Amino acid sequence: MSRKFAIALFAVAAILAAPSFAGSVETAAALRDKALTDATAWNILESITTEIGPRPIGSPAYERSRDWAVKKLKSLGFTDVHVETFPKSAWIRGAESAEVVAPVPQKLALIGLGNSLPTPKGGIEAPVVVFNSYAELLDQPPGSLKGKIAVVNQPMTRTQDGSGYGAAVEARNGDAEAAKRGAVAYLVRSISTGTGRAPHTGATWGEGPHIPVAALGMPDADLLASLAARGTVRVRLNLASSINPKAVSFNISGEIKGREVPDEVIVIGGHIDSWDPGTGAIDDGAGIAITTAAAKLIGDLPQHPRRTIRVVLWGSEENGGSAQAYAEAHKTEVPKLVIAGESDLGADRIYQVALPQGLPGLEEVMAPLKVIVSGEPPRHGGSDIGGLQKAGVPILGVSNDATRYFDYHHSADDTLAIVNRAELNQNVAVWASLIYLIADSGIDFHAKPDVK
Amino acid sequence: MSRKFAIALFAVAAILAAPSFAGSVETAAALRDKALTDATAWNILESITTEIGPRPIGSPAYERSRDWAVKKLKSLGFTDVHVETFPKSAWIRGAESAEVVAPVPQKLALIGLGNSLPTPKGGIEAPVVVFNSYAELLDQPPGSLKGKIAVVNQPMTRTQDGSGYGAAVEARNGDAEAAKRGAVAYLVRSISTGTGRAPHTGATWGEGPHIPVAALGMPDADLLASLAARGTVRVRLNLASSINPKAVSFNISGEIKGREVPDEVIVIGGHIDSWDPGTGAIDDGAGIAITTAAAKLIGDLPQHPRRTIRVVLWGSEENGGSAQAYAEAHKTEVPKLVIAGESDLGADRIYQVALPQGLPGLEEVMAPLKVIVSGEPPRHGGSDIGGLQKAGVPILGVSNDATRYFDYHHSADDTLAIVNRAELNQNVAVWASLIYLIADSGIDFHAKPDVK
Repeated sequence: MSRKFAIALFAVAAILAAPSFAGSVETAAALRDKALTDATAWNILESITTEIGPRPIGSPAYERSRDWAVKKLKSLGFTDVHVETFPKSAWIRGAESAEVVAPVPQKLALIGLGNSLPTPKGGIEAPVVVFNSYAELLDQPPGSLKGKIAVVNQPMTRTQDGSGYGAAVEARNGDAEAAKRGAVAYLVRSISTGTGRAPHTGATWGEGPHIPVAALGMPDADLLASLAARGTVRVRLNLASSINPKAVSFNISGEIKGREVPDEVIVIGGHIDSWDPGTGAIDDGAGIAITTAAAKLIGDLPQHPRRTIRVVLWGSEENGGSAQAYAEAHKTEVPKLVIAGESDLGADRIYQVALPQGLPGLEEVMAPLKVIVSGEPPRHGGSDIGGLQKAGVPILGVSNDATRYFDYHHSADDTLAIVNRAELNQNVAVWASLIYLIADSGIDFHAKPDVK
Repeated sequence: MSRKFAIALFAVAAILAAPSFAGSVETAAALRDKALTDATAWNILESITTEIGPRPIGSPAYERSRDWAVKKLKSLGFTDVHVETFPKSAWIRGAESAEVVAPVPQKLALIGLGNSLPTPKGGIEAPVVVFNSYAELLDQPPGSLKGKIAVVNQPMTRTQDGSGYGAAVEARNGDAEAAKRGAVAYLVRSISTGTGRAPHTGATWGEGPHIPVAALGMPDADLLASLAARGTVRVRLNLASSINPKAVSFNISGEIKGREVPDEVIVIGGHIDSWDPGTGAIDDGAGIAITTAAAKLIGDLPQHPRRTIRVVLWGSEENGGSAQAYAEAHKTEVPKLVIAGESDLGADRIYQVALPQGLPGLEEVMAPLKVIVSGEPPRHGGSDIGGLQKAGVPILGVSNDATRYFDYHHSADDTLAIVNRAELNQNVAVWASLIYLIADSGIDFHAKPDVK
């Protein structure tokens, strides 16, 4: 059976199974239209960025964000609001600085990567070797970077779907490869499409060996390359950091209880932890604002949909851990988890949604939002639902226009100032109407169509 | 006589006075076309941003920039290269930091303004009062801000001609007005059209009384406003700075000597000093690169134009002083200074040029560059030619598209990364052909047409 035909058959089956189908579509459309001017998402996002600010794991603000979230979910009418904790060692940033000391003194804008080793007391001063791509570094023989600071100045490609990030981000994890070749530190051009000097952090997650590792502002990486083309360049680097091995992370959730089959649950959400230079507005305050607002609008309906909608605010996306913890804590629930979706690519307009199967009425509801319904099932729905996905929970793919997302993400510029309120609301409209349709349907996304 | 008719008459007179007119236009057009692919301007800009970096007055890099400039002008074939020094007290930035301490701790991105007083040892901690416009602050009665940190969160309007800056920049100079009302410090939203967190510095130039004064990142100003709307906000502020009253500044110049009337001089240039957070690429490395490259291309011609072209790299624009020093040093020369022009609005495309009178062939030469020749004489040609203008030297108005200029200027993001090489060369093409036409003409711009 062809995939398209299979989807069509399932759609027909779903329509037959749901006598309230026409009503569902009508309600979804009304939700969509209400969401476009609703203030909930903006208010949530304004609240967390203003009252909490950056929320890196291990910080006091991270602790405050937990209490903020519980209070916020309760005040918005969610039920069964609770916190699920799990152990998660925290890397804590200290003072950081870097400068060119020869041939001419120039300060460098740079930020340590999560899990970086600190530099020894007094810092590191060493000559740099600049590579124009990560592949170039990997081509170097063992020992060839002995005593050097390895620099990779590899640009990232701007794309609508964010795929340029996937292609470039491997370079952020190059400290072990540089160390294996003898380097004493590793500096990588920020994985960003921007031109600004604000560097973009992120985690390094390799097995080691570890050395101090940091991301450079884009012009700073270019500067090192330009200076290195003229002769020897020496850089001084200071990166302080510490580890709290006993830190605790959390996933927080609240529900809009289903009216008929409350044990069938749609899981959606975003992550509440953030990197520290900005205020975590697009990564991922927006995700929690969008999905929470969408569920809240559904909760405000005179009649809840048939199934339960659960919003999860995952607590450790940037350093990993929440996906596994959530999947582990909810493994017995997997057969009842209808579908899982995450909003974690900012708040710019959604241009496409993808489902494992057809959903009656979806094209009709999405059309005024200029959202395409993909003919292909999603492959990736977000880091935090990765554990559920592995366990067999079907996933949603919701594609934000990521054209400008990587100008800002993981940098000081990730603040409320870059969020477009109308596009934020388009996101809420997509999530609210999409989730409502799923929650009021009887479709079993676990059942795989006979895909060719 | 109508202004247009007067210009037409002058144009005819100029054509009659210059038998080589057709040849001039042909040469100007050839210069224009060569400039569009010439590497000189880019190389100058790359050199100063890479080898010197930020060049604030009073810094070692500023001293280095003087030697760099002399060497560069000589190597490009300029003659009579020399340095004119003048005394200029230097304000020198120290360590700076600020944070919200209540109701919730949040770091603030901020940069001290030039000439700010330092905070007392241990810093200042005080409640803030936020005004949404500078006019709102001016409306406050004396004493009403006693013990407070006054904050003005006034946005700047984006415009092609940069006029939004003129309208907003007064707020940067509000420390005295805040002090008169009792404030202990003054924080102003950066005078910028950007959304980034990198704050934009600049000088404060008022008579006093003086208090510590700094510019906030745009999201940081919004954050203070949002927090203040919720209740009392306390901010801790540390601004260190010092003054070197015996510092020396300089204007540097070099010439392409005229073949027939070398004592008739066209003065063009940009300023070599810069603020310190970026590398001074668009403010104003670009200006010196563009005008130097334009003059160098003219100098490379088999035959120099009739008059002399002098490139001046003014040394103290950001803190004022070079315009007056230059005018004073050259006051006896004023009758022989044909015209003066400055490039100090970045390197984005030029969309208009304005002259005190018509210049035969100019429209024809500018047309392929999409540059309009204004029907109005220029009012302002750049800060550094202000002294000459006051002394009676006619000025040129060369209008860059400033739409995005104030996203970057005076901030860390003012680096080579934001310069578009093709637009930089369009600038060189405009300046080279325009200046050549003037230098090879006999027009006396001092003679005023009978403007109605």
